Amino acid sequence: MTQEWSTSAGVDLYVDLLPGEGRREGLERALRDAIRGGRLAAGERLPATRVLAAELGLSRGTVSGAYDQLVAEGYLLARHGSGTTVAHVPRAATHHVRRPAARPRHDLRPGTGDMNAFPVQEWLRSVRRALTSAPAAAFGYADDLRGRPELRAALADYLGRARGVAATPERIVITSGYTQSLVLLARVLGSGSGRFAMEDPGLPYHRELVRHAGAEPWPLPVDKLGADPRALPDDVSAVVTTPAHQYPTGVTLHPSRRRALIEWARSADAVVIEDDYDGEFRYDRQPVGALQAMAPDHVVYAGTAAKALAPALRLGWMVLPPRLVDPVLAELRLSTLETESLGQLALADLIATHGYDRQIRAVRARHRRRRDLLVGAIAAFPALSSAGISAGQHILVTLPADGPEESEVIDAAAQRGLALSGLAEHWHASHASHASPRAKGLVVGYGAPTETGYQRALDVLIDVLRQLYG
Amino acid sequence: MTQEWSTSAGVDLYVDLLPGEGRREGLERALRDAIRGGRLAAGERLPATRVLAAELGLSRGTVSGAYDQLVAEGYLLARHGSGTTVAHVPRAATHHVRRPAARPRHDLRPGTGDMNAFPVQEWLRSVRRALTSAPAAAFGYADDLRGRPELRAALADYLGRARGVAATPERIVITSGYTQSLVLLARVLGSGSGRFAMEDPGLPYHRELVRHAGAEPWPLPVDKLGADPRALPDDVSAVVTTPAHQYPTGVTLHPSRRRALIEWARSADAVVIEDDYDGEFRYDRQPVGALQAMAPDHVVYAGTAAKALAPALRLGWMVLPPRLVDPVLAELRLSTLETESLGQLALADLIATHGYDRQIRAVRARHRRRRDLLVGAIAAFPALSSAGISAGQHILVTLPADGPEESEVIDAAAQRGLALSGLAEHWHASHASHASPRAKGLVVGYGAPTETGYQRALDVLIDVLRQLYG
Repeated sequence: MTQEWSTSAGVDLYVDLLPGEGRREGLERALRDAIRGGRLAAGERLPATRVLAAELGLSRGTVSGAYDQLVAEGYLLARHGSGTTVAHVPRAATHHVRRPAARPRHDLRPGTGDMNAFPVQEWLRSVRRALTSAPAAAFGYADDLRGRPELRAALADYLGRARGVAATPERIVITSGYTQSLVLLARVLGSGSGRFAMEDPGLPYHRELVRHAGAEPWPLPVDKLGADPRALPDDVSAVVTTPAHQYPTGVTLHPSRRRALIEWARSADAVVIEDDYDGEFRYDRQPVGALQAMAPDHVVYAGTAAKALAPALRLGWMVLPPRLVDPVLAELRLSTLETESLGQLALADLIATHGYDRQIRAVRARHRRRRDLLVGAIAAFPALSSAGISAGQHILVTLPADGPEESEVIDAAAQRGLALSGLAEHWHASHASHASPRAKGLVVGYGAPTETGYQRALDVLIDVLRQLYG
Repeated sequence: MTQEWSTSAGVDLYVDLLPGEGRREGLERALRDAIRGGRLAAGERLPATRVLAAELGLSRGTVSGAYDQLVAEGYLLARHGSGTTVAHVPRAATHHVRRPAARPRHDLRPGTGDMNAFPVQEWLRSVRRALTSAPAAAFGYADDLRGRPELRAALADYLGRARGVAATPERIVITSGYTQSLVLLARVLGSGSGRFAMEDPGLPYHRELVRHAGAEPWPLPVDKLGADPRALPDDVSAVVTTPAHQYPTGVTLHPSRRRALIEWARSADAVVIEDDYDGEFRYDRQPVGALQAMAPDHVVYAGTAAKALAPALRLGWMVLPPRLVDPVLAELRLSTLETESLGQLALADLIATHGYDRQIRAVRARHRRRRDLLVGAIAAFPALSSAGISAGQHILVTLPADGPEESEVIDAAAQRGLALSGLAEHWHASHASHASPRAKGLVVGYGAPTETGYQRALDVLIDVLRQLYG
């Protein structure tokens, strides 16, 4: 139904009812739009309800109800003796357009997996099973900020079995991912004067998170044996490390360094944050068990569902030393409150029914093939070598010191539509003086492309490298 | 399969394979457990691989593989000439038990809805439709931190239609709920010297959030017309208000106050944060449209799915003045990164297929019946009166100044297993001197109990009131 009319003030007003909308609602909407759009200006006087009702073929009560409503909302002013006038309301703002960054044609940057691998049907089955059997209270605010008991129980079992973590449900806290886990820990451990030792090179985003949360990063050198804790200063309250597959060098932390790190944490009564980045994705032999089990009272184990399932789930977990559980929950309560529960229930079901293990095996097999193709391609260039190939979703391709600059390689690839990442962005600004000089290298991720897109991305990479090193 | 054996060091080791576990994994697990449990002590020497292999009926390669693995993990030390010994590893921590608070037998506190009303089947249908039609990229990290475009488009339409909000998808940011929305705004607007004017009385948790985020709450007086902005000091950078149904008094903000608030925001170039608490749940007449539409460049509209669907979803949204979009996203990026996407896709589907409107109508009808029962029960006591009854999931029962103290009523109810909330906890510690004296009252929520539990809770409430006011 469309009705068109002219008020005595000369304004054309279209009352075009939406499905299910009553006459009064339609009139109110038309008046609001006219006021916000500027067709009815501030101070303008509206026709008497009797006049307007007659023009529109509506009851007078409908019109006066609409006027009352808009007076209550502040669009109209009703004054005794002077009728109903339009209040001062700003014009509707024009659209403010922000475009997200365009995706590159080929993407061999690290940090993301192949999202076509997400097991949609299996996840939907878990969601259905979980929600139809969940108690009503599961849909309310959580009784326990740590997260759903079903998921914490499933994770305690899974992490013990698959990663050798010393986990009990009581010391597990569910978060929205490693980002939130690290931020909560930095707020708890980094407030005051405690610095955070963070691997150099490492992910710059993580240093940003720590700094924004009020802690100061300190560059922890990484060499062929992994992170080197020997020169840690006294005021470091936590060490953040990726022992299973160091990001970005790919080194697995050496047993002597594992011991040194644990000994430091014990003697300094400090905390090691074990980012179990890629821990479940080791290809050529059995995974190295979690560092956390060596000293569960000094190591925080942090993991996520981003690699095995999807980053979009926003589900992560921490296994905490008991003394940190309450301080971390206090921070969680004052930043987001509990983590989303329905995904937690579905993940608990997926783990308990072994779908999570199946998914990890499938992703591991897929990535191992990709890794083999990539390492094979690099092996054709005698000037280059691959490192950190035993696990994860990226390798480090080291570039010869006397060849082209890292940025030249990345630019040459970008011109062909291939996005690459280099080591350069991963170094701390204050590179540790006691560390080795900064090396040149490409951090090549093999997770992002689709199965067919991967081979095309590799072909472009080989072409670019042939141009520069062939 | 269970194997029992004694090592030459006199330790009983049980190798009990889990389903799907290989012999070597089982042996490794048994060794780890024995070391962590203290049955194999630091310094103890393990039998030679040849000896152990014979005892266990395993190949020597299996045993030496397990030893190597545990050396890599730091449980064992291998030294040339002295064989394999147990490293120093702390004993497994005992369970650290924290019990969540017990639920009361009857609960008439505000803040939560009846979780039996969650539309499980309809939600599952939306999840299925959304996930089977989602592009693969939806499972990865978000291209746009504001949230899924499907949900922002659905919300822009819905909020315009149902709440009169001037919304475009570009200025909507999805968060994990009002908690995160308020924290992000307090970090953006409250850093430096800006104070946050917050209604007095109001929810103490929200004051805590603002204070923790670095802004200082200022008590904004509330009277019969709602929040009173007339005495706002110069250093206030934002006003936080619940205009549709003030929490906890239940007042709907008067048109004159709406205008005064907007005029203040414009002249001070400051921001009003409109917490549209209960905006969709008005019973006796049409909802009052959102304040935001009066000044979309000065008002943040904040809503959530907690009331209509479930708090456990952790989905909220803000419609922001354009200049705040980037600062809010910068804070979001450094606290949790984007909000969980799969729930966003499902909610977008539920809104687009009108399931969300149906759910709101169903919840509104259910709560209106409950409200009527509660108001009817209170009307039997001439000393008491009900206020703020036109919307939401709670009313304010004002208590006579010369009667029992608020805390006496709450204690009497608690003794009967009924949890109630009073006005007392809602006042700011620094109550505004220009405000009316603190009143006594009960903030009675009717959302939490089940349908059958609600009548029982009411019966207990009536009994308690009869004792004190009968």
